[in-house]
Parts: sequence; structure tokens; C-alpha cells
Amino acid sequence: MQIKTYSEHSCFGGKVGFYGHGSKECAGEMKFAVYQPPQAAKQPPPTLYYLSGLTCTPETFLTKAGALRLAAEMGLQLVAPDTSPRGKGLPGEGDSWDFGSGAGFYLDATQSPWATYYNMYSYVTDELPAVVEQHFPGAGPGLQSIFGHSMGGHGALTIGLRNPGKYRSISAFAPICAPSQCPWGQKAFRGYLGEDRGAWAAYDATELVRTTRHPAEILIDQGLSDGFLEEQLHPHLFEAACKEHGQALKLRRHPGYDHGYYFISTLIEDHLRHHARHLL
Amino acid sequence: MQIKTYSEHSCFGGKVGFYGHGSKECAGEMKFAVYQPPQAAKQPPPTLYYLSGLTCTPETFLTKAGALRLAAEMGLQLVAPDTSPRGKGLPGEGDSWDFGSGAGFYLDATQSPWATYYNMYSYVTDELPAVVEQHFPGAGPGLQSIFGHSMGGHGALTIGLRNPGKYRSISAFAPICAPSQCPWGQKAFRGYLGEDRGAWAAYDATELVRTTRHPAEILIDQGLSDGFLEEQLHPHLFEAACKEHGQALKLRRHPGYDHGYYFISTLIEDHLRHHARHLL
Repeated sequence: MQIKTYSEHSCFGGKVGFYGHGSKECAGEMKFAVYQPPQAAKQPPPTLYYLSGLTCTPETFLTKAGALRLAAEMGLQLVAPDTSPRGKGLPGEGDSWDFGSGAGFYLDATQSPWATYYNMYSYVTDELPAVVEQHFPGAGPGLQSIFGHSMGGHGALTIGLRNPGKYRSISAFAPICAPSQCPWGQKAFRGYLGEDRGAWAAYDATELVRTTRHPAEILIDQGLSDGFLEEQLHPHLFEAACKEHGQALKLRRHPGYDHGYYFISTLIEDHLRHHARHLL
Repeated sequence: MQIKTYSEHSCFGGKVGFYGHGSKECAGEMKFAVYQPPQAAKQPPPTLYYLSGLTCTPETFLTKAGALRLAAEMGLQLVAPDTSPRGKGLPGEGDSWDFGSGAGFYLDATQSPWATYYNMYSYVTDELPAVVEQHFPGAGPGLQSIFGHSMGGHGALTIGLRNPGKYRSISAFAPICAPSQCPWGQKAFRGYLGEDRGAWAAYDATELVRTTRHPAEILIDQGLSDGFLEEQLHPHLFEAACKEHGQALKLRRHPGYDHGYYFISTLIEDHLRHHARHLL
């Protein structure tokens, strides 16, 4: 499979690049970003996938999180996919910031017309890693981990929990922890998956943890001045489910911090070190 | 003088904020950003001014440069002004990205209609510091330094050289070093200052260094894969003038690096340490 290079930039001795490729799961071009650390020139680095939140692009994390300095120091390759297919011309695709474009929710849609394009679960879990392994000097599928923010934190938790053999470790910043029980999740699940709540459970971390576990402790950081905490995020529900079902979890609550990248950049080092312990 | 708070965000134990105030020099509201390090709660921190390049806003540096972690560690207050007045409705104000909005060039315009609003030299040098000193716990005008990028690197060099008693140290990323001799500078100077090249010299670092000196060594970093290097930046002219006239300069050239914030973030630590040596 071919990839198209949009731009590449030296950074901390390694290289940030923005790429596109033809995706089968999303029936069209998908863009993604990769940071190759300087160590990649000598040996294949482990890969850490980052899933962004609502409205974000592959650029958001690379630009705002302050992760590249640490990835260069530790020798981690970073991969950031887009948050949805783009420009499909579907009815309602661009009408709201929490559904359609920029809001793929890391699931495989079953409802028409979304099912043709909106298969971000399979895209992130299978298709994109195959592309990355073909074109970048990563250490391969055995050495990867996953993390994300908000909607992308939901993605990291659900993808990681469903594929414990594929991802060595999981972490999240302010994730949507129980999407079946919050407005963002309910809107997305209803639109992409239909009314059958049985189908929703496969994409709900608080439901998943009842029947599956990840061997590594999950790290979650949550700001207590996050304007979405009360209505949308519900970390306490995931915390209670983890405790009841034996999933190791380190959930840290930070007074004064909000939902944005100033919060993420403050804690990014802890997350990269968490994953480095499992990958290096 | 009152300021308006647009938003504030906890970051690395300190606080990023976006503010606005009524400016006399720019005849209307000007926006700016401040990072207060955690140490500001105990003692007034030294202040480091950052001037951005063409098209940037006060947000650009705070979001992309990765400077806040280090400012928090070192106890430096960061201040980032906007790059021009905005929305004045002047003819041609929004027609090009290198003149008018987002392109104030850190000078005091003398040509109509720009002279009424485009007085970024006096704004950055005098008016904004007075606002910052009134509203933030900085250590005052005796303890400040200045740096910037591209057009803002030009601003930092010229403002710092013209006011050696006001700024303890100067540095720049890929600055426009000889604006009288490059298309960006010539377009701006012609528009804001008119055809008299004698008036241009007061805003040209390579000219200024012939008649004034800064007591501290100036630090400049320049990427060698910078697409603007050849035509617009001319660091070799500034280097030669510094050598001829006895201005201490450390100019470092970096193979493979371009003009953007991936380059800046790679070297931001060296610049903050450079200023910290003079401020702390």
C-alpha cells in the first residue's frame, strides 16, 4: 500500500511527518502523523498510538502536547490518526462538532450511511498499524501501546481493553469513561450503531471492564476544573467497575486543571514514562 | 488601566492566560498572553517577552513552543503580544499575510493610515510592559529580556539593541536579520515608513548594530532547511556586521531544520537557559 507524504519536519533529532493513504475501512483517503525518534535510524522503535478528541486532526497532538522531546529521549515512535473520515458528503456529516467529521468515536458503524466509511475501530486497530509497519521502522505489532484524550481516551480504553495482547499498556487524559451514559456517547452510538444498547457495550469502557481485563495497570489523569467532567466523562463509574472486576487502575484527579492541551502537556511526561516501562 | 480576561488555564503548576486591554499606541483593543510560573505566588518573577512571526497570534507561542515546562522549572514569566492591531478596516489590511493584520513588524508607522494604529514598537517596548507590571506579579522593568521568531526575531533584535538598558538579553529563532534588504522587510517598510530609507535603519538589526551594542551575547538559531533563509533572513549579513562592530553573537546553524515550531521547540530550552542566565 502506498502512502502520500504531505510534509516532514526535523524535530529533536528525529522527524515529524504528515501522511495520507487510501483506506479500505474508511473508503477513501485517511491522514495520519508519525514522529520517528532519532533512535529509529539505528533500531526499530516501539510505537505509541495517540487518539485525539472531538474536532482534532493528526496535527493536534504533535503540535500541542509537548510529547516529542520525551519521545526523542526515550526512543518511542508516535502515531496519531485522524479522528474520523473527512469530506464524504454524508447528510449531517458537518452539522455538529460531536458527530460526523472529527467525531468518529473509534467504533465500526453499523447504520447507513455511516457504515460505509466510519469504521475507525478497525482502522485504528488493524489497518493503520499495517500501514505504519510497512512504511516506518517500528518494532512491529508486538511492541505497541495506546493512549488518548477525551473521545480519544475512550478510544484508547476500549481498543486497549478489547485487544490486551496487541497493546502493552493503556492510558488516557480526561477520557469519556462511560459513553452509554453521557450525551456525547449516546448521540454518537445512536447515530452510528442504532438504538440497540446491546451493541453499545462493545464500545463502552465501563461495560467492557466487566468481561475483559488488561494485564497492565491503566493510567488516567483527570482535571477537576474540566467543564465536561460532570456531564460527559464519568471517571468514577469506570473506577468503580475496575475495582469491582479487578482491573488495575491509577486514576489521578488534579485540582485546577481543565480539559485542554495545557493540562495534557503538564502530564504528558508521566504518560510517556508509563508506556516506556512496558515498551522498553 | 483595565484588562479583560478571555481565558485562564492551569499548566505546570502555573497559569496561562489570554487577556485584552485598550491600547493607546494601537488605538483599540490589543490581546496578549501571559504565563505565570508557580514561583510567582511567592516572589515576583523576571519577565521574558516573546515576539511571534507573520500571521501568528498571542496563542501561537504558548501552544506550540513547549516553553511552559521550562518557564515553570526556572520561574520565568512569559509574555506574548499579538503581531499587529486587528480589524481596523484599513484599505489592504487583510489582503496579504505579510503586510497589515498579523504583520506589524514591531515598528511605529509614519505613513497614513497605518500611523494611527500600527505602532507596535512603542506598544511592545513601553505600553504593554506597563500593563503587565500593573496586573501581574513580575519583578518589574529592570528584570526582563526579549526573544522572538522570524518577524518577531527581527522585533527582538531591533527592540533589544535600541534598548540595551531595558532588556538583559536577546535571542531569536530564524530572525529577519536585514529587513531593508529582503522582500518582506522592504514591503513592510515601504508601506509603514515610506520610501525614505534613512527611516528604515532604525528598524534594521544589521544597520543598528553599526551604531549601538547590547552588553550580552545575542543568541540566534537558524535552520538550514528553512525555505525562507536564502531570500528573506540573511543571518550572514547580521553576523558580519556584529563581527565588524564588536557585538557578541552566537549564531548556530542547524542542518535539516526548517522555519516552523518543530524547529523552535527543539531549541527552546537553550533559549530559556540563555535568558535565565541573565535574569535569575
